[in-house]
Amino acid sequence: MTNRIHNFSAGPSALPTEVMKEIQENLLSYKGSGMSVMEMSHRGDLFMEIIEEARMRIKRLYNLSEAYEVLFVHGGASLQFAMIPMNFIGEGQTADYIETGIWSTKAIAEARIQNKGVRVAASSKDREFTCIPKAFALSPDAPFVHITTNNTVRGTQWHALPETGSVPLIADMSSDILSRPLDVSRFGMIYGGAQKNMGPSGTAVVILRKDMVEKIPAGLPTMLSYRTYVEKESMFNTPATFPVYAISLVTKWLEETMGGLKAMEEINTRKAEKLYAAMDEDDFYCGTAEKESRSLMNITFRIRNHDLEPVFIEEALKAGMAGLKGHKSVGGLRASIYNAVSENSVDALCAFMGDFKRKNR
Amino acid sequence: MTNRIHNFSAGPSALPTEVMKEIQENLLSYKGSGMSVMEMSHRGDLFMEIIEEARMRIKRLYNLSEAYEVLFVHGGASLQFAMIPMNFIGEGQTADYIETGIWSTKAIAEARIQNKGVRVAASSKDREFTCIPKAFALSPDAPFVHITTNNTVRGTQWHALPETGSVPLIADMSSDILSRPLDVSRFGMIYGGAQKNMGPSGTAVVILRKDMVEKIPAGLPTMLSYRTYVEKESMFNTPATFPVYAISLVTKWLEETMGGLKAMEEINTRKAEKLYAAMDEDDFYCGTAEKESRSLMNITFRIRNHDLEPVFIEEALKAGMAGLKGHKSVGGLRASIYNAVSENSVDALCAFMGDFKRKNR
Repeated sequence: MTNRIHNFSAGPSALPTEVMKEIQENLLSYKGSGMSVMEMSHRGDLFMEIIEEARMRIKRLYNLSEAYEVLFVHGGASLQFAMIPMNFIGEGQTADYIETGIWSTKAIAEARIQNKGVRVAASSKDREFTCIPKAFALSPDAPFVHITTNNTVRGTQWHALPETGSVPLIADMSSDILSRPLDVSRFGMIYGGAQKNMGPSGTAVVILRKDMVEKIPAGLPTMLSYRTYVEKESMFNTPATFPVYAISLVTKWLEETMGGLKAMEEINTRKAEKLYAAMDEDDFYCGTAEKESRSLMNITFRIRNHDLEPVFIEEALKAGMAGLKGHKSVGGLRASIYNAVSENSVDALCAFMGDFKRKNR
Repeated sequence: MTNRIHNFSAGPSALPTEVMKEIQENLLSYKGSGMSVMEMSHRGDLFMEIIEEARMRIKRLYNLSEAYEVLFVHGGASLQFAMIPMNFIGEGQTADYIETGIWSTKAIAEARIQNKGVRVAASSKDREFTCIPKAFALSPDAPFVHITTNNTVRGTQWHALPETGSVPLIADMSSDILSRPLDVSRFGMIYGGAQKNMGPSGTAVVILRKDMVEKIPAGLPTMLSYRTYVEKESMFNTPATFPVYAISLVTKWLEETMGGLKAMEEINTRKAEKLYAAMDEDDFYCGTAEKESRSLMNITFRIRNHDLEPVFIEEALKAGMAGLKGHKSVGGLRASIYNAVSENSVDALCAFMGDFKRKNR
């Protein structure tokens, strides 16, 4: 039996061990074909079934209506930051972006590079991104409102969506996609890099409302127009076949083993509550995000005596827990507890936090 | 022992079985880390070693001087078709493209979509792309000359490079990269999707001469500027970590098991010669590319009695040989024999071709 570590990495991050075992078993010969998924034509029956399964499972998990398309686009969320303004901010239009951390900042920067109309409708920058803004005036004429639903660096998350009326909401959900149920009807588009809750890096999943397609201008480079992905069913060129395969298995695990997004949310909530409780017990540890904006995915905290943090990281690794260092821009500690991080791993970390405190108080 | 098929798929295509076994063995725990390569931070030491190894092995295999950078870019060759004109055709400039098949045609189309100056300096379209053009007048003022070194659909390949003087040559080598030695000093840029000779789909390898970087305009979307990949060492965002890992292992296999590109070329030449000999024996089969333009990678042929082609494909599959159907745009038969297709597989196909002919003459 291979010894798996408790993996709290912020991304790429833990995938379900049973999914990894299935990938391993089929690595030299998928379904008796004599070849790996990564060695087969993307236009063959076997891969066509895989991509269709990934698409259908995402549709079922989010209970998507016929109004939505599920697309697989190369390049992760960062390429989406560039594609969104290119596809959806027209001449004379100004989009509203809500700035909640470095990922939103990057999304805004890519719209500005293209000289598109961009307004930062609200920002928590003056609070060092430790909370989600509460007050914002949105424009009724904006082509969309862009938010980042979960912010990995400071560990904040939107717990209620902003009211945008008839303006479509576009959300970067890279770090909490498929972690809880969602009223997708409020969104024109949802996107996320695969490498946190879905599979290996190299592809983004895009959920696009069909009426958004009509707004895409002609004349964009083929690979940068969402229309291409809709019309060619994400097969204009060779998709990232192996990541798509992993996504099909992870979404199967979500549906069949975990019981869907409602059940997943309950587990994710319990995991986060346990860690926040361990952190809030007294003043040895302290959380860095404001309480009402705390993320269920990235638990960020400090040890009051900062000098103990490197010791914490080192001893945790010795105890079989990896990935606990905070983002380099803010330091401190961070436990990322995406879907595939088991409650067992969280329990182990809580116990370790207690022990460490007793030893170092 | 898993039964591996003889895999003649045009792409994604066969990878070395020993590489697949190494991936399989390390799938749940890479180097004792307790996590898969696809589950670990791209900024951690383990992945940094992997990407550096992939980079260094490509540099050694092609004997690259310090003047060249090796980059890993998302999205396959199709995104390169758009990035090249964006980065390298300036205001008032006209680039020369040589059109040798559908991939060149797509590259040209992406430059035209951007209203860039493009001239088709030569084309074999009037010969249905069954040969590489011999005569072309290149402009001394062009920012680059673009060629497609190997053409998968019709099975043609450049065997001598065009003289471009001081104009940089840019080559799409998706289907013959790392298949033979190359005088890289003649190129400003070489690129290829990984999924034929290098690894799983989802990333492109770009070899860029450093002086090309100076020509890149400011103000491009960050993910679409080669400058970003040079400055951030392909880590501006999360690279396609698992494909990069596979590339590191395939290039290790090329160096250490196969003995480098000269040795690989000898094997590839022998493999191709065997298949062309089997095809040329008499008039039962006939090659579809002109003899002097024949590819060492994609052997395209027909059975004179076209009705026998579906029978050939079906019986070959029963005999353990997959991927022999020609490209949908031209029909017929095609055996793709990239680096990882063993001489043993080629021998099996030659024997099958002989048997099939005797039975169906």
